[in-house]
Amino acid sequence: MIKIGILGYGNLGRGVECAIRQNPDMELAVVFTRRDPKNVKILTGTARVRPVSEAEQWKDRIDVLILCGGSATDLPEQTPKYAKLFHVVDSFDTHARIPEHFAAVDASAKGVEKTAVISVGWDPGMFSLNRMYANAILPEGADYTFWGKGVSQGHSDAIRRIAGVRDAKQYTIPVEAALESVRRGENPSLTTRQKHTRECFVVLEEGADAAKVEQEIKTMPNYFADYDTTVHFISEEELKRDHSGIPHGGFVLRSGVTGWEKEHRHLIEYRLQLDSNPEFTSSVIVAYARAVYRMASEGQYGCKTVFDIPPAYLSAKSGEELRASML
Amino acid sequence: MIKIGILGYGNLGRGVECAIRQNPDMELAVVFTRRDPKNVKILTGTARVRPVSEAEQWKDRIDVLILCGGSATDLPEQTPKYAKLFHVVDSFDTHARIPEHFAAVDASAKGVEKTAVISVGWDPGMFSLNRMYANAILPEGADYTFWGKGVSQGHSDAIRRIAGVRDAKQYTIPVEAALESVRRGENPSLTTRQKHTRECFVVLEEGADAAKVEQEIKTMPNYFADYDTTVHFISEEELKRDHSGIPHGGFVLRSGVTGWEKEHRHLIEYRLQLDSNPEFTSSVIVAYARAVYRMASEGQYGCKTVFDIPPAYLSAKSGEELRASML
Repeated sequence: MIKIGILGYGNLGRGVECAIRQNPDMELAVVFTRRDPKNVKILTGTARVRPVSEAEQWKDRIDVLILCGGSATDLPEQTPKYAKLFHVVDSFDTHARIPEHFAAVDASAKGVEKTAVISVGWDPGMFSLNRMYANAILPEGADYTFWGKGVSQGHSDAIRRIAGVRDAKQYTIPVEAALESVRRGENPSLTTRQKHTRECFVVLEEGADAAKVEQEIKTMPNYFADYDTTVHFISEEELKRDHSGIPHGGFVLRSGVTGWEKEHRHLIEYRLQLDSNPEFTSSVIVAYARAVYRMASEGQYGCKTVFDIPPAYLSAKSGEELRASML
Repeated sequence: MIKIGILGYGNLGRGVECAIRQNPDMELAVVFTRRDPKNVKILTGTARVRPVSEAEQWKDRIDVLILCGGSATDLPEQTPKYAKLFHVVDSFDTHARIPEHFAAVDASAKGVEKTAVISVGWDPGMFSLNRMYANAILPEGADYTFWGKGVSQGHSDAIRRIAGVRDAKQYTIPVEAALESVRRGENPSLTTRQKHTRECFVVLEEGADAAKVEQEIKTMPNYFADYDTTVHFISEEELKRDHSGIPHGGFVLRSGVTGWEKEHRHLIEYRLQLDSNPEFTSSVIVAYARAVYRMASEGQYGCKTVFDIPPAYLSAKSGEELRASML
């Protein structure tokens, strides 16, 4: 049994807990929290809830620590810190800062014979893998990533910060015509506006000015100004009833050519449709926790990404079983 | 530069030659053929064409030998034989016999510090990888593989063996309704007939009995009897004009559940649309030739499959470049 610890019990931590139950070679040993452990109710009867200050005492009692904090402030500090004590997995997703995060975690893990995998999930994660494989196979071609239909947490938060808004959910939606053009091999150059639309469901505070809020959303730089944005005002009940899920997904496509005269076209498409973004991310993380455990057992230390890990390490099946059943 | 040799110059060998030109860190050094080298015209001006009997003399002059023979009789003999002399890649695609082929190649390669990768292409190959990753991520779910729309060489050959048939092309076509049911998460149990249809374009010999040929095709055990099959009789000119390509492709899907009560559904879908089946297969093979070269340089010997190889080994880019550009 691979003994897992979780640090941080939000949507992601709870998702990891659920995913562990679906993997018979793993068990959840402990959840570390910054809250008062008395107030954190977990689902696994056999696991403990302990304050994060006690984590170091669990150094030899768990095999892998899964870091379930946020990428903005938690992980840049936590992953390098805990990679000195545990084999760790995180889902750091600030793409632009991955190189520095990698360097920091690698520096921590290497000297102390620990193994870390960063940026695990679906983007970064499975989408990255698909971009990489497709580029290696078709060196001449064009890449496209579309996100959605799904809830963007960051964009929903941005709307919630507007004065007069009580609550909001924002969906990112790929533009079907753009997707179809890519699928036809037309290699389109697509602007931000041509790739995605944004749909917002907003609950106003009493007496708020709907027109003013709508205007503020639609003109918000970076978040909405470059997109065709639709705003719907709904009641708190409707938001709760129709928009309480956290679905997401998207498409990674590569369109490329082969042949002596580049006369043949090919399309590689990877698509995810996810009812629960955090639970799917968690499921990927848990498979990589198995890989971390194995790499560590073999003395493969330091920081890794999904690019560095042999696929078979993710599976509970042996090489023999995999070759017989899935190759 | 990674120096490549090709053994066997049919559609696949020619595809490998074209793919090498798209990878600036590789060069084609030699093509080995069972035909008279004088009668084999290749495209690469700088490469040699030599009889297969001379292959052993090239032992220290090429880095990787790519075996481009067929799975029925060539590869079961060639791959174990040449894995004693070279680092090799093959595209052995008889799924049921992969375990014994693996064992034979592994026995050859291991003792002599050679690295071999077998069963590279898209199925087995990229489809296998996607089945494996998706199963590791979603342990509870159902798998579906659909092939097409594309030309099945084996089925086309089977039609050509019927008396009265001059030439034929057979297309395997996924049933759209079955695909849609999988995408909706309905986890359908699908019979052979419900998954694919078969469409045949047949050129008759003069005086052949069309009704009899059609009946023979549609009732052919294993190949057609279990499918809804359509037969079109066309002229030799039409076959040449409209059906001379070798397109293929297909879908790998996994539909799975997560959550404490398994309340959330997810769909992972990988799709290929290929203008040229052999050229795409070749492109995958050439990327794995790079991986073989690297693993051999690191002393990772023996037989491998796509499951054993870290994705980054396929790419000409460094780990640093990959993390900065594709993660």
